[in-house]
Amino acid sequence: MASKRLVVDVHTHLYLPRYASLLRERTTLPKIITRTRDDGRKDERLVILKDEPSGGRPIGPSYVERDEKLTFMKNHGIDISIVSTANPWLDFLQPKEAHRLSLQLSDDLEEYCSTGPTVTGTSMQLYGFGLLPIVSGISTESLLEAVRQISASSHLKGLIMGTRGVGKGLDDEALDPIWAAISEAGLTVFLHPHYGISEESWGEKNNGHVLPLALGFPMETTIATTRLILSGVFDRFPSLRLLLAHSGGALPQLSSRLASCIDHDPIVASRLKHDARFYLGKLYLDAVCYGPEELGFVSDIIARSNRYETSSKNVASGGRSSGSGRMLFGTDHPFFPPLSSSERWKSVVENLDAIENVQGWTEADKNGVKGGNAISLFNL
Amino acid sequence: MASKRLVVDVHTHLYLPRYASLLRERTTLPKIITRTRDDGRKDERLVILKDEPSGGRPIGPSYVERDEKLTFMKNHGIDISIVSTANPWLDFLQPKEAHRLSLQLSDDLEEYCSTGPTVTGTSMQLYGFGLLPIVSGISTESLLEAVRQISASSHLKGLIMGTRGVGKGLDDEALDPIWAAISEAGLTVFLHPHYGISEESWGEKNNGHVLPLALGFPMETTIATTRLILSGVFDRFPSLRLLLAHSGGALPQLSSRLASCIDHDPIVASRLKHDARFYLGKLYLDAVCYGPEELGFVSDIIARSNRYETSSKNVASGGRSSGSGRMLFGTDHPFFPPLSSSERWKSVVENLDAIENVQGWTEADKNGVKGGNAISLFNL
Repeated sequence: MASKRLVVDVHTHLYLPRYASLLRERTTLPKIITRTRDDGRKDERLVILKDEPSGGRPIGPSYVERDEKLTFMKNHGIDISIVSTANPWLDFLQPKEAHRLSLQLSDDLEEYCSTGPTVTGTSMQLYGFGLLPIVSGISTESLLEAVRQISASSHLKGLIMGTRGVGKGLDDEALDPIWAAISEAGLTVFLHPHYGISEESWGEKNNGHVLPLALGFPMETTIATTRLILSGVFDRFPSLRLLLAHSGGALPQLSSRLASCIDHDPIVASRLKHDARFYLGKLYLDAVCYGPEELGFVSDIIARSNRYETSSKNVASGGRSSGSGRMLFGTDHPFFPPLSSSERWKSVVENLDAIENVQGWTEADKNGVKGGNAISLFNL
Repeated sequence: MASKRLVVDVHTHLYLPRYASLLRERTTLPKIITRTRDDGRKDERLVILKDEPSGGRPIGPSYVERDEKLTFMKNHGIDISIVSTANPWLDFLQPKEAHRLSLQLSDDLEEYCSTGPTVTGTSMQLYGFGLLPIVSGISTESLLEAVRQISASSHLKGLIMGTRGVGKGLDDEALDPIWAAISEAGLTVFLHPHYGISEESWGEKNNGHVLPLALGFPMETTIATTRLILSGVFDRFPSLRLLLAHSGGALPQLSSRLASCIDHDPIVASRLKHDARFYLGKLYLDAVCYGPEELGFVSDIIARSNRYETSSKNVASGGRSSGSGRMLFGTDHPFFPPLSSSERWKSVVENLDAIENVQGWTEADKNGVKGGNAISLFNL
């Protein structure tokens, strides 16, 4: 089964040309600005927030050009990438424009993937996660139309989504028809952070982007997923496939505390069918956390989830092996490029090495996390 | 060595009578209010925040009475408790009052402990963490005086501290003389959350206190400790003993991501002597996270820290056993009482069971976490 040895990257971003053009034309944030460097060359930067310390995120060809993505994949032994638009997606647009653009961008992405190279036979090297126009004021019908279009695009395997929903977060019942349609279509939601948490947490010291990136991003994902659990979304839509960025952030480590806090609040507890830890076993998590101990722990948390099913007779956890089946390699390309020119990116090598070094994972588990699990989940 | 089998609780709170009186007399928040219940009985509630959904935290005799603490200990097989004032400590006071009260409360606590029962010989059942008047506008001399007084109190083994510092957080160089004095005195800082993170993260649904308690508290500790690491405090004060509440919150799970983010920011990286993961091995962590997988993981993270010492020749991690030596049992009493009358508290039993069920810990490791490590660390 040669396919079991393929390496699949489920966390890899791009800005499609149409999206980059939009950002270049904008006069308010977020927008792409062109800076002239000291050596006279020009470079582009995406400015998302006022007063970004670094003057914005450098946006080179690696964000836009398909050949750059393919070269990056080749240099790192990645056979298949499931690409997704990087944040901030369509979050800043008015409903009408978000709706129009979501359809166009999903079409663009389908073409980007379907006209790309193949791995073997009919398997492509590029698949994608589309976009919903999930902004404040959007109609349910517009969201459903975008889901239908993604579902009809054979190279799109799901959609990437932030945490704001239509303005009130993802625990908003207004999204129930969307979860239903996504579940029905067998699409995967790739939940990805953008907003972090309130910057007053970071204090006055200049620590660059370290605190919002290292802590704020995973905390945002943790909070959004916890709110989804508490709202009963996983009870109402048990077949919903949610893939969490950055290995679920802090949710695995805080999950027993979460269960204990729920347990001591009868009103919240009575709304849920199971112990909170049960729902973690229903998630998919990327393997983007840069350390083997973290990865092994996440697989423990998935493996133990059966113990926490109400009325379950399971008292023992499956081993780490069983938990690894819901974990999927990712790179976060083109973010975290090496500081000096290098074909192999340290950030990617760290995530690959982490998989290799998990105590208690078999070779088959490692191959699964590197690619086999994605091939099964997305039917590649 | 009978002492190895003693159970020591390092995370257990109280409000000393003087502190409770202060809160009863206050006219602004935080304050203790008396409510008359439907059955005509009165109960007291501590109101910390405006519009608390539950009308405040119920404050019964378990918060104030020493006999209640001792009964709780007896019911749970706890031999020794290192008690500390519960949040919000002195954070809300003006410097002069905070200074006066910190000295009085540390005296009160010394008396509370020293006049209590003994375990065996000269070992007492009660020890304490004192308080510093660490508020905005306080003088360094006042803080140092409080450190000296705690140091001179033979039953006080350190001090409990929130995350605000003197107004700018704990990564404020103004605190360097305090860290120096605490290190010099061999005292332990018990770092405990109170503020959580901005409540806009919690959304509009009524989830009781679940989100701020389950996520906000450990996230606050995570952020404060990360800011301490980034500020170089552990490089400047390598013998500083910091004990983190709730097993360090999310810091262990986010630590490799933190290291990677630092690694990609040369300015921040250049300020630190070691990879961020090294510093986690310098911490002490309570074992208050309610699950065996979480505890085992935390011990992995401590054990691996030697790999990340700059210029270290260590490439292998110590096993989980070696990491368990910095982990210390706690209960969080009198918080999380059982919902129905019960001698044995579920929240405590969960933490004890979690220790028993960690894969890869020996009986000696488990006894260490339950008490032996605290006996060594605090020289009880």
